[in-house]
Amino acid sequence: MKEKGILIVLSGPSGVGKGTVRKAVFSRPDATFAYSISMTTRKPREGEVDGVDYFFKSREEFERLIKEGKLLEYAEYVGHYYGTPIDYVKETLASGKDVFLEIEVQGAKQVREKFPDGLFIFLMPPSLDELKKRIVGRGTESIELIHNRMEAAKKEIELTSMYDYIVENDDVERAVDKINAIVQAEHCRSERVIDKYIKMLEVE
Amino acid sequence: MKEKGILIVLSGPSGVGKGTVRKAVFSRPDATFAYSISMTTRKPREGEVDGVDYFFKSREEFERLIKEGKLLEYAEYVGHYYGTPIDYVKETLASGKDVFLEIEVQGAKQVREKFPDGLFIFLMPPSLDELKKRIVGRGTESIELIHNRMEAAKKEIELTSMYDYIVENDDVERAVDKINAIVQAEHCRSERVIDKYIKMLEVE
Repeated sequence: MKEKGILIVLSGPSGVGKGTVRKAVFSRPDATFAYSISMTTRKPREGEVDGVDYFFKSREEFERLIKEGKLLEYAEYVGHYYGTPIDYVKETLASGKDVFLEIEVQGAKQVREKFPDGLFIFLMPPSLDELKKRIVGRGTESIELIHNRMEAAKKEIELTSMYDYIVENDDVERAVDKINAIVQAEHCRSERVIDKYIKMLEVE
Repeated sequence: MKEKGILIVLSGPSGVGKGTVRKAVFSRPDATFAYSISMTTRKPREGEVDGVDYFFKSREEFERLIKEGKLLEYAEYVGHYYGTPIDYVKETLASGKDVFLEIEVQGAKQVREKFPDGLFIFLMPPSLDELKKRIVGRGTESIELIHNRMEAAKKEIELTSMYDYIVENDDVERAVDKINAIVQAEHCRSERVIDKYIKMLEVE
């Protein structure tokens, strides 16, 4: 019997470093996950390639896909849609490969409803001070926006009980080690593999 | 707030190689677990040291300790008692260190009742044929005993739903890698660490 892949969802408050950790996960030579490319209605930035960085879509097209149930999750952010096409995720999991999603907290909530047996990892800042430093460090945000972000982050951290695991992002490589250990462990969770061994008893 | 250690229980059918895997776990230079030494009423074998390999006790003493509730689990096996002293386990976990137990399936059941939040790993033979080979390979068992062992093993494998994880012992070093990943992952399980982060939100 072929084992299905695991849907791995990495989320966490804005500013915690999800993108950096995700890139580090995929830069490991032994990374075996499939990366689900997001869909967006925002314009490509310099150097971004359609189908590599994002699937770039018009607003009309995106809204049509929402209506047709073709998005696993989506959100509107600063006037643009961002979302995850569902077909790719389903097909890849069925083929036995793990799929890795890096998404916002709101999106993760939607995914949890559709994939209750997904593997949900919350990336946690080592402290709120540290999170503030990282948001300020981007240098692109006004003081008011920073305040709003921090309030939003606190609310998001309160939602961590929805997640299976919490990984502290004190150090990127250490966080990647933990994520890899979590995925390896999940492939040994009895509820995921027990059917295989029950079959072994029946056969012999 | 200090994190408590995790009680790790490695079990599986007789002949699967629990002892070999346990030794390999502790022979890794980065092993951080405390090993809980078992207590027994059998005589020491050549080279075995009291307090290192086992705590060797008289039958009377062992039975007194059972009555006093000083054993986390125990079983009688070919006329001798084997058991795990509970105080060492409790004190070591309280100090923040993980404790590693390698015990029979019956003992694991008793531990589950007393430590529901322990981490239970079932070591699984790659196949029943392979298990039979290993039992026969010991060369110490009669054909009838081999048959009984195999029947017992099948029953034990049916109990795997009690375990959190199933690790296939197809290769000792690979099994150790998986056990280490499982322990690392468990230290990130949200139910184990969420209190720490709730505190972080309250403080700041």
